Amino acid sequence: MPVGTQATVKGILPRDLIGDLDAKIILGNTYHLYLRPVHETVRRQGGLHGFMAWPRAILTDSGGFQVFSLNSLRKITEEGVLFHSHLNGDPHMFTPESTIDVQMALGSDVMMVLDECIPHPATHEEARVSTDRTVRWARRAMDHFAHHDDGNRAVFPIVQGSMYGDLRRSCAEELVKLDARGYAIGGLSVGEPRPLSLEMTEITTPLLPADRPRYVMGVGMPEELPEYVARGVDMMECVLPSRNARNGCLFTRAGKISIKQNQYKDDARAVDETCGCYTCQNFSRSYLRHLFQAGEMTFSTLATLHNLRRYLDIMREIRQAILIGKYPEYLRACRAGQ
Amino acid sequence: MPVGTQATVKGILPRDLIGDLDAKIILGNTYHLYLRPVHETVRRQGGLHGFMAWPRAILTDSGGFQVFSLNSLRKITEEGVLFHSHLNGDPHMFTPESTIDVQMALGSDVMMVLDECIPHPATHEEARVSTDRTVRWARRAMDHFAHHDDGNRAVFPIVQGSMYGDLRRSCAEELVKLDARGYAIGGLSVGEPRPLSLEMTEITTPLLPADRPRYVMGVGMPEELPEYVARGVDMMECVLPSRNARNGCLFTRAGKISIKQNQYKDDARAVDETCGCYTCQNFSRSYLRHLFQAGEMTFSTLATLHNLRRYLDIMREIRQAILIGKYPEYLRACRAGQ
Repeated sequence: MPVGTQATVKGILPRDLIGDLDAKIILGNTYHLYLRPVHETVRRQGGLHGFMAWPRAILTDSGGFQVFSLNSLRKITEEGVLFHSHLNGDPHMFTPESTIDVQMALGSDVMMVLDECIPHPATHEEARVSTDRTVRWARRAMDHFAHHDDGNRAVFPIVQGSMYGDLRRSCAEELVKLDARGYAIGGLSVGEPRPLSLEMTEITTPLLPADRPRYVMGVGMPEELPEYVARGVDMMECVLPSRNARNGCLFTRAGKISIKQNQYKDDARAVDETCGCYTCQNFSRSYLRHLFQAGEMTFSTLATLHNLRRYLDIMREIRQAILIGKYPEYLRACRAGQ
Repeated sequence: MPVGTQATVKGILPRDLIGDLDAKIILGNTYHLYLRPVHETVRRQGGLHGFMAWPRAILTDSGGFQVFSLNSLRKITEEGVLFHSHLNGDPHMFTPESTIDVQMALGSDVMMVLDECIPHPATHEEARVSTDRTVRWARRAMDHFAHHDDGNRAVFPIVQGSMYGDLRRSCAEELVKLDARGYAIGGLSVGEPRPLSLEMTEITTPLLPADRPRYVMGVGMPEELPEYVARGVDMMECVLPSRNARNGCLFTRAGKISIKQNQYKDDARAVDETCGCYTCQNFSRSYLRHLFQAGEMTFSTLATLHNLRRYLDIMREIRQAILIGKYPEYLRACRAGQ
């Protein structure tokens, strides 16, 4: 899923998300949209779909991740979490119920429950206390949603448990009882080694219903996508392709390119000669390097178009391999770097 | 003409310059491209047309304007102008001949001669000395170009003369003897009152061949475009629509809008409800204000798309009015603010 934090995928117009990338779903960040332009403004403008002219699906996070990553002065109680706006310091409270209300105002198709996302490393006791609270919050969020459920949207509970397999398992077992329309696995990509993220995923996915979407939040590198899918994951989201693009890091079938390097100064080749994106079909590495060096925002647009296309192409390859029953072969080829 | 200083119209992809705006010609800045990525790099990448994937016409300035506006330590001699790069301080020399060579390397369709652009106000003697040199430089540039002329491109001499009608007239008379394929009027928009820019134009255009393009450099506001055309001008170029767009100033049929104002927070209307651009057809003032406040680069793209469309629509209206023989009526309506 391309990330559209503030009601826009940075540098990409909605028509290009459809026409160039055929993205089926994008992610919006509840925390950011709640603070600015304020969710009630979005509601009055037709929800996120109308506001940003995006006709396809939208998933929103609960805001929990940003509350924990952007706030040093937050205060957690059983009721919810008190935090201060990173924009102007104003105090705000998120509860399991209020974050569902905010996401309803945004008109989200797939909403997330409020969870506590703790840093890595955490002690087993810290993780247990936090995970238990996340489960209680998930129950409250689902109860609250039940009063508004028109059958047209979903709320996903989020499995936490830090890097402890027993906590991941018990959390998943409790959340499955909520009979949700899909499930997320959170608390990864918080500084742990990458093999550990995969291990936690591998422990968790078999406990979640196979006939409902399983979504790992905040991953990953291009070569990791097939690994997550191999472990039963259906959905992923990460700022990596778009943020790296803006920083000049471009993903190709043959690996990463740092476009600012001098070796690309007169390189007339496309970023990835096997890629069908607008950027690769029209512009050279030499041109892209020039735009990057000159600080031109067109660079960010062209680079993001390419990196998102690369990610979505990988997911299309994965779906195709699964459909024709060749996923093990596809995975082996990926691992061999082919 | 949309301005594409560094081989890109800021925030706009070439396909959108064609598909959304139907721009027939864009401007590139020789000074900037000479320093970065260096004109020889552009030549090796297929000229500006190939480098930036722009299939239509390109006009380049001579670099003179930037040498004078970005350099406090320049030194002018009869030979040319010595200046220091604003990027790293390296010394460089532009001569009438070398700036033609650079523009040939860029593959420009319409090139400009090196001129001296003096600030306003200047004494009559300062302006006379400078204008005489500009004429001598124009002769050298045209002589030099004659050796490379394949009939597929044009070089425009530039009429200078500060705000002195006698100097403008004598300069134009001398330059017309060069029998160029078009002429520019430079040295305007350098701080003088706007009526004076129009007055200098009105003095100059009748002296230039009516069957060849007459181009006023660096103008103007939307309401000024019909005034310049009324004085015989065929071409104009200005950073105003794109730069103002990035700063949140949007031009509409009913006047300017500063999108950051609080009054637009919940305004569901398009920027200009009579406008057919992608921005106005899909997004509200409320959304655009949000993107501006959030510092999202998508704002710059959407705002620039709109402002350039407004400018090009005005030029299309002007052409239509001329074609049907109703230009005086059109001009009267513009002046009455209709």
